Amino acid sequence: MKLVKNAASRLVPVEVNGEKQIPYKGFGIYKPKGRMAAPPIRSCADYPADGNKVVKSLKDALKKAGLKDGMTISTHHHLRNGDVLTNYLFDIIKEMGIKNIRWFPSASFPCHQHLIKYLEDGTIHHIEGSMNGPLGRFTSEGKMKGIGVLRSHGGRYQSIQDGEVHIDIAVIASPTADPFGNATGDRGKSACGLLGFALGDSEYADNVIVVTDNLVPFPCYPWQIQGNNVDSVVQIDSLGDPAKIVSGTTEVTKSPDRLLIAEYVAQFFEDSGIMKEGFSFQAGAGGTNLAFAVYLKEKMKARGIKARFIRGGSTKYLVEMLEEGLTDYILDGQTFDLEGVRSMRENLGHVNTSPFTSYNYHSKGNFASIVDAVVLGATEVDLNFNANVVTHSDGYLLHGIGGWQNCLFSKCTILAIPSFRDRIPVIVDEVTTLVGPGELIDVVITERGTAINPRRKDLIKALKGSSLPIKSIREIYEEVIELCGGAPAKPKVNKDNVVAVIKWVDGTLLDSVFQVI
Amino acid sequence: MKLVKNAASRLVPVEVNGEKQIPYKGFGIYKPKGRMAAPPIRSCADYPADGNKVVKSLKDALKKAGLKDGMTISTHHHLRNGDVLTNYLFDIIKEMGIKNIRWFPSASFPCHQHLIKYLEDGTIHHIEGSMNGPLGRFTSEGKMKGIGVLRSHGGRYQSIQDGEVHIDIAVIASPTADPFGNATGDRGKSACGLLGFALGDSEYADNVIVVTDNLVPFPCYPWQIQGNNVDSVVQIDSLGDPAKIVSGTTEVTKSPDRLLIAEYVAQFFEDSGIMKEGFSFQAGAGGTNLAFAVYLKEKMKARGIKARFIRGGSTKYLVEMLEEGLTDYILDGQTFDLEGVRSMRENLGHVNTSPFTSYNYHSKGNFASIVDAVVLGATEVDLNFNANVVTHSDGYLLHGIGGWQNCLFSKCTILAIPSFRDRIPVIVDEVTTLVGPGELIDVVITERGTAINPRRKDLIKALKGSSLPIKSIREIYEEVIELCGGAPAKPKVNKDNVVAVIKWVDGTLLDSVFQVI
Repeated sequence: MKLVKNAASRLVPVEVNGEKQIPYKGFGIYKPKGRMAAPPIRSCADYPADGNKVVKSLKDALKKAGLKDGMTISTHHHLRNGDVLTNYLFDIIKEMGIKNIRWFPSASFPCHQHLIKYLEDGTIHHIEGSMNGPLGRFTSEGKMKGIGVLRSHGGRYQSIQDGEVHIDIAVIASPTADPFGNATGDRGKSACGLLGFALGDSEYADNVIVVTDNLVPFPCYPWQIQGNNVDSVVQIDSLGDPAKIVSGTTEVTKSPDRLLIAEYVAQFFEDSGIMKEGFSFQAGAGGTNLAFAVYLKEKMKARGIKARFIRGGSTKYLVEMLEEGLTDYILDGQTFDLEGVRSMRENLGHVNTSPFTSYNYHSKGNFASIVDAVVLGATEVDLNFNANVVTHSDGYLLHGIGGWQNCLFSKCTILAIPSFRDRIPVIVDEVTTLVGPGELIDVVITERGTAINPRRKDLIKALKGSSLPIKSIREIYEEVIELCGGAPAKPKVNKDNVVAVIKWVDGTLLDSVFQVI
Repeated sequence: MKLVKNAASRLVPVEVNGEKQIPYKGFGIYKPKGRMAAPPIRSCADYPADGNKVVKSLKDALKKAGLKDGMTISTHHHLRNGDVLTNYLFDIIKEMGIKNIRWFPSASFPCHQHLIKYLEDGTIHHIEGSMNGPLGRFTSEGKMKGIGVLRSHGGRYQSIQDGEVHIDIAVIASPTADPFGNATGDRGKSACGLLGFALGDSEYADNVIVVTDNLVPFPCYPWQIQGNNVDSVVQIDSLGDPAKIVSGTTEVTKSPDRLLIAEYVAQFFEDSGIMKEGFSFQAGAGGTNLAFAVYLKEKMKARGIKARFIRGGSTKYLVEMLEEGLTDYILDGQTFDLEGVRSMRENLGHVNTSPFTSYNYHSKGNFASIVDAVVLGATEVDLNFNANVVTHSDGYLLHGIGGWQNCLFSKCTILAIPSFRDRIPVIVDEVTTLVGPGELIDVVITERGTAINPRRKDLIKALKGSSLPIKSIREIYEEVIELCGGAPAKPKVNKDNVVAVIKWVDGTLLDSVFQVI
């Protein structure tokens, strides 16, 4: 496997799964040429005039779509760890004797451990998409036939739009759908809120199959997926386990350290002047981030400040802010709990967004860079503010990128992280895997100090006089190394065997993940 | 000009404005090959990170878009006869000294008479789009430099999607927009309800300019036009005259003959069994159609029947049905009055549709063929049920196609027309211009009789025993010829000079319009 050093001094293969790659060129340097992917032109003459595209079974739909060896099949992850459809899909593909599928999920979860046997027996050749948990471990150990390709949510849309990944068949789990193929995630027994991760799939795949466990008469509205892009509709008993689709129990952290971090982040919003009338922010659904949202809300109420918009993933905490008039809009990409799903259905100000609107970098701008501040996590951050979200310090690939890379483009990117986890430092000299270039990370807030990227002189100035424990990243690093009894051991990997690659938002190769030995 | 006879025995040119044409092949026969048009790939690196795409003036935006001679510029007609933006646009283009523009509006109105001077001086080479009134007359007299091309709403989307018409610059009048380019028609002082006619333009044009007289902070929601497709945003004082954008006064006819037709149509719905629980229909905004909606509503209430959906253009009469619970949804393509605009903003069941969802024939089905029955008008219908909506019997091109051709695909297409107008028969031996093939027209309802297309044996059977005055089309024809003192004189035209062509929904040439002499 031939590797080259890219502009971030990271070794990346020149070819992945037989396709030539472009190494990362630096921030904002690589500019795409040419035109977007173009789906085949269809004719209404080939579809039922009454709009009824229901076929008897998923197997029939796959046959009708012309499934054959080596095809690319896509799925979405809005059902999260409650998804049973994808496992069922590959059971059928196996039964049909089909081999060497490129599986292109928007993410995979522990529930997809079921698919390891199909990775082993050659039904699935490799996965392009986030691999959370068991599939990541399997890949890290060098057991997958092809090389995994990890992309951000925006990068996934970009790769479809640009024709980098051609989807032969998209299988779209749809909590509610009509016989024409209009589909929504905001209602039905398997409601998951949104279906935005499947938007690009529905627009560009050669063949689109909507699978639902709640078929309603035309029109299914909202049509998060448009029936005009759909070839077949399949009805099954159940898409998954509702309790695992939306947990219903996203809760703030109880850890005193994490609560302290959350408080610091909220204070940073106030002291930096980011929290002002009409501002905007995004925070995830982790316990620290939820605690931050609660603290921020109190500060906003105390000062009579209203946001213009909050970016989801939504939770009951954000829904409360919307319903209490503390923001005009939630611009949501996925709903993390039942309150998010309800609000999506009921509130006009709770708006359906997608990787196209929010994250696609090969676009005429996107929402992510308009956001005033974003609060994110990381598995590691280094002295140059470079960050990692996919591997642990032992080299294992255990997490996906999600929208993380895309969110780095906000006007102020804050990593809210503990300085160590399980006695392993999170602040390191050099990240195991580079997922976010340091020039895009503005602030690192830990329980033992807040470090501002020296590039952000404006923020350093604004924070003069703040009571926050402002330190250099090196100071925090040294403290935590001492506390943990040294830096983490470098992972034991085989540098000749790239098991997965990390794409940057523009489709170039930012880093490689190596086989753990 | 070389002409050939197409499958409907109509003479059509082999070439139009230098481009080779496909003659109409018959119903559902021509199948497109190849892939859709593909817009250039862009990069966020080339757009302002803060999302602010506002430029100083429309002239600046046109310069930035690289406007030059011979380009195609598109506009939409949601501002109807109140549009002042398009005239202003061409004043600037003239001032810039640009020549030979192909103007690609979704329709033109009498207010665009202002542009005749630009057609004369070579600023505009020709118009592709509906030409209502003065521009149609100008074209009919052979005065336009190029050949006019008339398409249905669905055909316009199809032509853009299929790459038949490449739009260089789309200029989108937007009653409300944000600096990122998200735009909506449902609010603002120039509110027109929807912007669906500009959807294809926003998706496929090389350069998209949003022009607004109501700039709001990001996000403008709903985003009927998505800012991710927009290059520049321009703020001007006024897009047009609100009183002419939506009349606010669409009213039912007072003519006893038209009221009788409307009553017959409503009775046809009842007697044929079309009016049943969960049915659907579409009717336009003409006085007869509005009267029909009123009669139908009474019948539905009397029988306790609820529709699943009604297709707009919407008016206060349809809004009343929605708000009184007589339908689950209005699937709307354009709002014809202020009540339609209000309802669009307020009612979740009043749904924004577009030529993509409703009418595009080169798609995986569309909404039009799912509709149980549609009530349409016509300028002429002949003994073979062929119909005309664009020319009068004197040969003058005075109307556009609109969604008319697309609606013919409903399960039951009803033409509700007077048998004569101004003592000129509407039922003729052969239509002046073929716009709708007779095999798609099921019923013709006039004040002196209802004719069912002999192909629809099922309808003939269902109507046995109805008190409607069922007659053959020939019987009605003969009555009206006698009444009017003979068939209309054949138009005096120069068969060597095609001034405009009529496209079928699949992009083939259905008929020609000849120079009136």
